[in-house]
Amino acid sequence: MQEKADGQNYAPQGRAEPVCGPGEFPVGVIGLDHGHIYGMCNGLSEAGADIALVWDPDPARVELFRKSFPSAKAAASKAHILEDASVKLIASAAIPADRCRIGIEAMDYGKDYFADKPPLVSREQLEQARSCVSCTGRKFNVYYSERLHVEAAVCAENLLAQGAIGKVAHVMGLGPHRLGAPSRPEWFWDRARYGGILVDIGCHQIEQILVYAGAETAKIISAGVANYHNKNHPDFEDFGCASLVCDNGVLGYFRVDWFTPDGLGAWGDGRVFIVGTDGYIEIRKYIDPASDREGDHLILVNREGEQHIKAAGTCGFPFFGNFIRDCLGRAQTAMTQEHVFTVMELAISAQEHALASGVGGFKG
Amino acid sequence: MQEKADGQNYAPQGRAEPVCGPGEFPVGVIGLDHGHIYGMCNGLSEAGADIALVWDPDPARVELFRKSFPSAKAAASKAHILEDASVKLIASAAIPADRCRIGIEAMDYGKDYFADKPPLVSREQLEQARSCVSCTGRKFNVYYSERLHVEAAVCAENLLAQGAIGKVAHVMGLGPHRLGAPSRPEWFWDRARYGGILVDIGCHQIEQILVYAGAETAKIISAGVANYHNKNHPDFEDFGCASLVCDNGVLGYFRVDWFTPDGLGAWGDGRVFIVGTDGYIEIRKYIDPASDREGDHLILVNREGEQHIKAAGTCGFPFFGNFIRDCLGRAQTAMTQEHVFTVMELAISAQEHALASGVGGFKG
Repeated sequence: MQEKADGQNYAPQGRAEPVCGPGEFPVGVIGLDHGHIYGMCNGLSEAGADIALVWDPDPARVELFRKSFPSAKAAASKAHILEDASVKLIASAAIPADRCRIGIEAMDYGKDYFADKPPLVSREQLEQARSCVSCTGRKFNVYYSERLHVEAAVCAENLLAQGAIGKVAHVMGLGPHRLGAPSRPEWFWDRARYGGILVDIGCHQIEQILVYAGAETAKIISAGVANYHNKNHPDFEDFGCASLVCDNGVLGYFRVDWFTPDGLGAWGDGRVFIVGTDGYIEIRKYIDPASDREGDHLILVNREGEQHIKAAGTCGFPFFGNFIRDCLGRAQTAMTQEHVFTVMELAISAQEHALASGVGGFKG
Repeated sequence: MQEKADGQNYAPQGRAEPVCGPGEFPVGVIGLDHGHIYGMCNGLSEAGADIALVWDPDPARVELFRKSFPSAKAAASKAHILEDASVKLIASAAIPADRCRIGIEAMDYGKDYFADKPPLVSREQLEQARSCVSCTGRKFNVYYSERLHVEAAVCAENLLAQGAIGKVAHVMGLGPHRLGAPSRPEWFWDRARYGGILVDIGCHQIEQILVYAGAETAKIISAGVANYHNKNHPDFEDFGCASLVCDNGVLGYFRVDWFTPDGLGAWGDGRVFIVGTDGYIEIRKYIDPASDREGDHLILVNREGEQHIKAAGTCGFPFFGNFIRDCLGRAQTAMTQEHVFTVMELAISAQEHALASGVGGFKG
């Protein structure tokens, strides 16, 4: 399943590069509310995991999932998965507001956890997750797909490490998404359940900004959310933006929205711009509009000239293998636990900042 | 003179479309410190103005100017131009901090004024200019070239007017510039004389945001400036950014910098992104990096699909003819006087906001 036009069912596929043997890393899947679970399980199984068990309250969703992952047995209940001692990791794309609770149950059962973003939607849930990680020593990790599952984004990280644009000064992300309103479930429109746009899809952007800036954390300096064009869903936010300053002085900005027009040949024209002291990088993640329907374009401009790098098939998705090795070896090479939580803390701060400032939305 | 690699000497040329007869609109030029004067005079003369007189303290600069505009007589002094009753308009690209004073002299002599951006660098100068316009009824206009003298930017305005992307929700501008440090005069590095980066090159961006947003004014909600990479010029700012909310609720953001790498085939990869409720526009003003060294690219994505519009030669630069007709007919079709001042007030506010917040610059 790799539906380019539909973000909720966009599930990238890569090369199989197992980092563990068969049976060494069984994964139990709990909660299939969001199609991202397919991308999560693609990445894990390509890296050697066994998608062993699956449960969701809706048997039809379970059957559909098993068409893509026939190795997964339909579990009789959630408890059946949690109680299975062989399962090393619980993966979930339940409703955002429910993801944290599932993670806490998983960690309490001694398992690591891998949630779709956002893995939680409130400060209270963040504290619960932090506390549970601290008590259990288990991992609470997140599928920040817009960086982890985009080869051009991986390529950008490699180029930065090679010093291709000098020292990074500014990182900007644009995250437009296709709304596809008729196909959306009830929870999609309910802020308490999806978390607000800066939490839901803003966390991707914050995650990227911190990583490309080489920063540990940041401060939100301004933020706005709006419902510009979906007044029939008064609790929905179709637009959000925020400005950040990172702890190392790098500045950042992002814009997220649900305005991808029907005429675009992808679910969103996601971009990243990284300005360094010696050059800049632009990523066109999912499409090069009016030029190429394939994604993974990277434009690199530095002293040497202008390059258009087609990153597809070049660097794979190292996150998944690193994460599995981290779980097996109790390391933090794929992503630190503190990074996961810092990103969500900033996303929640941005959302709070925007709601408090009241910025955004047509006037008059 | 149309030097693509060098922003300070980049002077677009268009079709001659005179809106007045020979001798009807004589222009006097005072102050040649910035090469933008060539673009200003190209635009005016293509629209029918006579570049009649020129003065600058440096006779060599006057002679160079007269190679491009042989109709211009070298005046013996500034007063000689101001006192010439036939001159309708004074155009100036003097040092930014000096432009306002020249404008006030021009208006006091009953002439309209057209300054390179920024036309002033402080709140005090802004009040002086406002007051003089109010007393004399003369025009104090500005060469906001990044919108007025870019055909793709004019094309974008036309598309918005046609409703091509619905109602605008967000406008973002990226204004990178090539530093070309060895060729820069002393005043370029002195904040008191260039005004700070958000005044100097930020005013372009604010101007665009207001126009594309269809807004009268805006509020700065965050801003930052930094000197990331030019520590040998401690008073220089090589980076700036700001977030705005317009009076009609449209959100805006811009980033400006002096980091254009040597390998880019233009002085800056200027971009604008406009998100509407029914589509979006991207402008690649001066180059399509790693694809096309010519500028004026516009990407339009809406319900109908994705289009790459090459705007060069399609819509010209209507500002100059409109401005001349405005001067002759005492109208404000090209740009209102209030818009000119509002833009500069916001640019100064952004600069103040950034300096007060202390945001930006590498830490540690």
